[in-house]
Amino acid sequence: MIKAVLSALLVLVALSSTFGKYIPKTGRRTPQTLSRGWGDQLIWAQTYEEALYWSRSRNKPLMVIFHLKDCPHSQALKKTLSDDVEIQRALDEDFIILNLMYETTDKHLSPDGQYVPRIIFVDPSMTVRADITGRYANRMYAYEPSDIKILMDNMKKAKKLLKSEL
Amino acid sequence: MIKAVLSALLVLVALSSTFGKYIPKTGRRTPQTLSRGWGDQLIWAQTYEEALYWSRSRNKPLMVIFHLKDCPHSQALKKTLSDDVEIQRALDEDFIILNLMYETTDKHLSPDGQYVPRIIFVDPSMTVRADITGRYANRMYAYEPSDIKILMDNMKKAKKLLKSEL
Repeated sequence: MIKAVLSALLVLVALSSTFGKYIPKTGRRTPQTLSRGWGDQLIWAQTYEEALYWSRSRNKPLMVIFHLKDCPHSQALKKTLSDDVEIQRALDEDFIILNLMYETTDKHLSPDGQYVPRIIFVDPSMTVRADITGRYANRMYAYEPSDIKILMDNMKKAKKLLKSEL
Repeated sequence: MIKAVLSALLVLVALSSTFGKYIPKTGRRTPQTLSRGWGDQLIWAQTYEEALYWSRSRNKPLMVIFHLKDCPHSQALKKTLSDDVEIQRALDEDFIILNLMYETTDKHLSPDGQYVPRIIFVDPSMTVRADITGRYANRMYAYEPSDIKILMDNMKKAKKLLKSEL
């Protein structure tokens, strides 16, 4: 009985929310999120220009994640990063964040090439922190799930702003 | 009784989905969408670079919407555009779409200034269609909800690609 009521309720909710709205031929889609699974509770910038503007105006370092949907390394890092409450809190409170699936035209964001996953920090002074690297000599800005401690340390480095270091 | 079961179920679902996950101090947030209300069922590009790439590779014109959350004109146009099944279908099937709240560094996207709402079409040949305008002489790329017919006509113009016109 309860099951039937629940089903009827679900159908009603579904109907009422789609009535008169456009539905693609291929069926209803889940709306795309800006987080793309890297932290649904965080506030993501949409573009690099936007992220730079936020970083400057709020005086917070920017962390840019380059990734691809079909890349298993990206997926593995995404799972680790989004499940880590400590990192998520730090990102939410102390960073401006941006995740991109397409490269920008700014070559400073690919100091040693375009690959994924790749994490680049940018200082609020708009200087790319090419000095903040992971542990792979051939892909200096790559991180694996097991490198999460290194990433955390690098986030701490990025929080020491260049201006305050002078 | 059913109400009680439903409530218990909702609480359980809520608990199980948040357990061990990061929740901001200010409380749980709704994940950001890329559509931002301009068409939740459509597939939006995230950045201008991405949109240009899609436009070229799929040979579809690009429509860029510049808007702001707190701008009532943007909101009004958003409601009209997202409620219009015909426009939503055309956008889904025939266009690459991008909505931006921050300007890009590309000045071609602001032929007569940076204002919102503003709709710019770009040909797959990467030419900004500055010739496709609305009906306001001082803000040539602005549209009001009552201009939806003009917008539809302009979408038809944009679908006539520059290359095929030669």
